[in-house]
Amino acid sequence: MLEYKDFEEKTIERKELFKGKIIDVYLDDVALPMGGTAKRELVFHHGGVGIIPITKENKMIMVKQFRKPLEKVVMEIPAGKIDPGEGQHPEKTAMRELEEETGYRTEKLTYINEMYLSPGFSNEKLYIYAATDLVKVENPRPQDDDEVLELYELTMEEAKQAIQDGLICDAKTIFAVNYWELLQLKNKQANS
Amino acid sequence: MLEYKDFEEKTIERKELFKGKIIDVYLDDVALPMGGTAKRELVFHHGGVGIIPITKENKMIMVKQFRKPLEKVVMEIPAGKIDPGEGQHPEKTAMRELEEETGYRTEKLTYINEMYLSPGFSNEKLYIYAATDLVKVENPRPQDDDEVLELYELTMEEAKQAIQDGLICDAKTIFAVNYWELLQLKNKQANS
Repeated sequence: MLEYKDFEEKTIERKELFKGKIIDVYLDDVALPMGGTAKRELVFHHGGVGIIPITKENKMIMVKQFRKPLEKVVMEIPAGKIDPGEGQHPEKTAMRELEEETGYRTEKLTYINEMYLSPGFSNEKLYIYAATDLVKVENPRPQDDDEVLELYELTMEEAKQAIQDGLICDAKTIFAVNYWELLQLKNKQANS
Repeated sequence: MLEYKDFEEKTIERKELFKGKIIDVYLDDVALPMGGTAKRELVFHHGGVGIIPITKENKMIMVKQFRKPLEKVVMEIPAGKIDPGEGQHPEKTAMRELEEETGYRTEKLTYINEMYLSPGFSNEKLYIYAATDLVKVENPRPQDDDEVLELYELTMEEAKQAIQDGLICDAKTIFAVNYWELLQLKNKQANS
């Protein structure tokens, strides 16, 4: 079994290529553990949250929006970037984004998982929460002023169909639908 | 219900920030559908494949490796980038990466899903395949010469524990373990 030192790539030199609002981009020269060097292209990101909101009618709330990198309109679970200062409390980000994007609030947020989305080049980490016991907010926090969002409530069958149709096509939302299905199957088994 | 034009963000100007081996980075000025403009930070990537290899003993083959963006050693399903020219045939990439990373070959590759990993800033798409009926290769294709990999075969329980422990911590591998569990539960239900 290999040890950490057999894997580690130490940075010899780091070059800053871009410092943006959402991402910072660097190019590293690294020393390889077996000798020699290599380049590593790196995208640093503050991380984000994804929320799986399940209504009393057992529907999942989804958000339709345009994604510039894909040049298309897609359907996703509510999500958002962690603001600087919120890093230690991603559940605060989740509460805020749920209200901003859906107009619902909850006292019941359940931590599901955290995951790196693209560990080959990026350190972006996503925290995923389930939100139940949703309460409609009278005067919700306003949405970000550069986003157009349209809300949908989908049954499990509709969500699975949207994956088939390619309207739901991102990792966190496909994860959310699988998570939901797995949960229901387990509940069914426990009750049978 | 909103139409495409109500969502679309048209590029006014695109600035190239970096052209790398793995990613290209751009900064767009876009015209917002409700008026006004915004900046969009964009990372373009050729996409990749992830393979869920299940052995005859019903174990999943995983690869331990160092990930520079995370500065740690993690366990993932075998995966790799799509080479230019392979774009129309990601299953070829999957066959190649399976052999390079695990030393196994298969005739039975099953398409599971495709997913954008981080649609907020990146167009990186991952194609996921399950690989069964694995055959050990006598003289497998060599691994990339800048990668140190260590192979493991995990039972479902071990894989779930590795997620709990944070050793498995990326979206595609967590997806793979959930997919595997969902499949087994469905098979169990179908047979009961």
